[in-house]
Amino acid sequence: MEFTVEQIAQMLNGEIKGDKSLKVTQLSKIEEGKEGSVSFLANLKYEQFLYTTNSTAVIVDKTFEPKKDYSSTLILVENAYSAFTILLQEYQKIVADHKKGIEQPSFIAETSDIGEGIYLGAFSYIGEGCSIGKNVKIHQNVTISDHVSIGDCSVIYPGVKIYKNTFIGENCVIHANAVIGSDGFGFAPQADGSYKTIPQLGNVVIEDNVSIGANTTIDCATMGSTTIRKGVKIDNLVQIAHNVEIGQNTVIAAQSGISGSTKIGENCMIAGQVGIVGHITVPNKTIITAQSGVSKSFKKEGMILGGSPASENKEYLRSQVYIKQLNKLDERLSTLENKFQE
Amino acid sequence: MEFTVEQIAQMLNGEIKGDKSLKVTQLSKIEEGKEGSVSFLANLKYEQFLYTTNSTAVIVDKTFEPKKDYSSTLILVENAYSAFTILLQEYQKIVADHKKGIEQPSFIAETSDIGEGIYLGAFSYIGEGCSIGKNVKIHQNVTISDHVSIGDCSVIYPGVKIYKNTFIGENCVIHANAVIGSDGFGFAPQADGSYKTIPQLGNVVIEDNVSIGANTTIDCATMGSTTIRKGVKIDNLVQIAHNVEIGQNTVIAAQSGISGSTKIGENCMIAGQVGIVGHITVPNKTIITAQSGVSKSFKKEGMILGGSPASENKEYLRSQVYIKQLNKLDERLSTLENKFQE
Amino acid sequence: MEFTVEQIAQMLNGEIKGDKSLKVTQLSKIEEGKEGSVSFLANLKYEQFLYTTNSTAVIVDKTFEPKKDYSSTLILVENAYSAFTILLQEYQKIVADHKKGIEQPSFIAETSDIGEGIYLGAFSYIGEGCSIGKNVKIHQNVTISDHVSIGDCSVIYPGVKIYKNTFIGENCVIHANAVIGSDGFGFAPQADGSYKTIPQLGNVVIEDNVSIGANTTIDCATMGSTTIRKGVKIDNLVQIAHNVEIGQNTVIAAQSGISGSTKIGENCMIAGQVGIVGHITVPNKTIITAQSGVSKSFKKEGMILGGSPASENKEYLRSQVYIKQLNKLDERLSTLENKFQE
Repeated sequence: MEFTVEQIAQMLNGEIKGDKSLKVTQLSKIEEGKEGSVSFLANLKYEQFLYTTNSTAVIVDKTFEPKKDYSSTLILVENAYSAFTILLQEYQKIVADHKKGIEQPSFIAETSDIGEGIYLGAFSYIGEGCSIGKNVKIHQNVTISDHVSIGDCSVIYPGVKIYKNTFIGENCVIHANAVIGSDGFGFAPQADGSYKTIPQLGNVVIEDNVSIGANTTIDCATMGSTTIRKGVKIDNLVQIAHNVEIGQNTVIAAQSGISGSTKIGENCMIAGQVGIVGHITVPNKTIITAQSGVSKSFKKEGMILGGSPASENKEYLRSQVYIKQLNKLDERLSTLENKFQE
Repeated sequence: MEFTVEQIAQMLNGEIKGDKSLKVTQLSKIEEGKEGSVSFLANLKYEQFLYTTNSTAVIVDKTFEPKKDYSSTLILVENAYSAFTILLQEYQKIVADHKKGIEQPSFIAETSDIGEGIYLGAFSYIGEGCSIGKNVKIHQNVTISDHVSIGDCSVIYPGVKIYKNTFIGENCVIHANAVIGSDGFGFAPQADGSYKTIPQLGNVVIEDNVSIGANTTIDCATMGSTTIRKGVKIDNLVQIAHNVEIGQNTVIAAQSGISGSTKIGENCMIAGQVGIVGHITVPNKTIITAQSGVSKSFKKEGMILGGSPASENKEYLRSQVYIKQLNKLDERLSTLENKFQE
Repeated sequence: MEFTVEQIAQMLNGEIKGDKSLKVTQLSKIEEGKEGSVSFLANLKYEQFLYTTNSTAVIVDKTFEPKKDYSSTLILVENAYSAFTILLQEYQKIVADHKKGIEQPSFIAETSDIGEGIYLGAFSYIGEGCSIGKNVKIHQNVTISDHVSIGDCSVIYPGVKIYKNTFIGENCVIHANAVIGSDGFGFAPQADGSYKTIPQLGNVVIEDNVSIGANTTIDCATMGSTTIRKGVKIDNLVQIAHNVEIGQNTVIAAQSGISGSTKIGENCMIAGQVGIVGHITVPNKTIITAQSGVSKSFKKEGMILGGSPASENKEYLRSQVYIKQLNKLDERLSTLENKFQE
């Protein structure tokens, strides 16, 4: 890309302080800015960098007043962070993958319907009876098994594996090597100590606007569906077991795992490396802190949970403070014991 | 599928209460039952659903006595859960993947032996000197490197990567994007702070009837073999390091990790997100609760371990109770201190 | 391979005690040694095996003095462990994959440069504008997206997926199904509770001599680069988030996760299942014990951290001791309370 500072300012409805004819060619963090960079300053924690950055232009809040000399041209806007996000999105449109068409070799079963405007990368496979919507991008080395449905404008990155009967909505993004619809982990113990596989006959349903991270696994239901509601965002290396339901707009960070038949509410935030046992309910708007282990259902919405086993986070943090002072507790007790002996 | 209730009852050696001519077309949980569903009721916790379900037929224990009106036809059997499992298995046979033959494009080195009745999906690769048994199913985008052996009737799902010299027994199932035989994590520290790779020359041996989950990784041994004994069931995203041995019929849930050279006994149950350090021994029939960290060998069979570092689970739970009461302990101590001051 | 004991001894500059004409054909652990094996004894914990092993030859330290009878031929060297490592490396050269050339079908965009002596496995894909160095080995079912650079002699195992604009140095090894350059997990909350994707426009830079484990994920930066410095060794199923920097020669064990924008120093050792929050700094030479959760920056180099939230490991271990004695603390307190009542 190449724009003048003036063009950027127009795009953002901003006011210029400095040379409006300068050219910018890339977006950079203010602390990594170079000649040709446009950066932003929103959090005043980073103000110092304004006075040292080599960025050609810096987007700042209208209300911001510099305290020292600076060499960049400023673009004053209502909200610097939002304005910069707009730039990011515009930039992304320019650099986005505009690939279309069907690369060879690839495999499409005759009984499958393929929408207009799709991209299918080489070495990708679409099984029998699939329905692939318009403008879907399926990158390379993807396997889509039989009777899978993918809604318009979804993007499937390289190496994703989708088991049969999976339903994926519109505008979903599934990152590389994620696995959707693998068998639930169900085995019936036998008298001789061995296990018999319980057939997993259900599927996975992913609603619209869902994002799924790289190498994440979502198991199919034993019967019925494992369900990911619209707007859910799941990070890398997350495990979602059979018959789980994730409520809409819930966010799950990397390496967390949710066991079978558990139901997570809407608008929850689950941090990284959290574990949640099976057959429980997590209410709407619950926040679960990193590495927690949730071992039972909670009923109140909007709680913050922490620890393993998880309790209200305040309680957990209070326990942590007491634990750190156990040596003092021990000393106080010894002092009393000694006094009592006297 | 479409069966009459009578046909289902005959299959299960059951007795009918209600209309035996009704038709059923799918298996459903009792709480999700629809017209045309056959469901089961085994755990009385779910009894309420019998009185509200829309399932056409419900399989119940012979001894069960309904307490309210219900609208489904009942099928009375010795054990409702077992009977339903039989139905699941019959249903699976009907819907199972009956693919056979070799899809193109695929790659089979001339020096490899391929058994009768196999299915090889498109974009899959079989290297030099491999031996693939009868009726093996290898789905799409699988890589099988040189000198790999796979026993009869095993199923390899899409995207699985198997390194050279791996041995896999009969009736194994390996789910999508699992990696078998990657290098053990071995590096020798050098004087300058860098590391030199220790060559990993061993392999992985997987015995019969083993199931391995999606995106799970099993490293090869430095020398000798990483060994997964018969009947072991491993869930998704599990890490098995070099030279580990897992005893027969042991079950390992998602996101657990076992470090190098550790030996896990037979018939153990390892819950999710457990970590086990290297070079230790876990005895037969050990149960390890979720998120535990096992840091040393145990000797007694059949223990339940919990916590990190893990101890006998009773001890761990007792500590947890005390931790929750630390504020009270502190108050009691303060009370005594005050009394003593008086 | 087949060598005489004499040839092995010459290779290692060692002295022979026993029959120098015997033939050895494989490397084995001393406890698993067979006729034809050459083994080593470095750690005296394993001395007992010398007196029972069937290994034809055993490499020992010059200074070692046997206390019982043994049947193997000994090879005396300065340092038995180092000598054996040399043997491992020689052996690896013999058994290494000497594949070269471009297998078909594979896909190379016309605008990409491919170095001399490369191996490209079947079903692998190289996008537009890539630069692949000399003697690079790219195994099967690999996807290399547009504008990726890979340095000389690097090895990319089957199923690896590399997103666009990734830079990989020389002599790197990336194990099967790892994902490099997937989108950072960045979403801006909207007023209606939904999330808008923040475009991730940066890349991943991996310097020379880096090793990355199977099914590990490294996200691209929002802007700028996620950076893995030279000599870093990363195990399986590790998550590295956007804009993270890992200092040179740092080692990270399996299933650990590092959140966005965190900076890890040089020569650190991070054990398995560790979690590190975002936007913090871990100093050089820090050791982090397994399952720890690092929640804040530390300043001193060379600390050992443990626990979740992590503190200096000594402190953590002390707390663990106190926790185990909480029942006694409680009893002591009750005793005092009773005495006071009297």
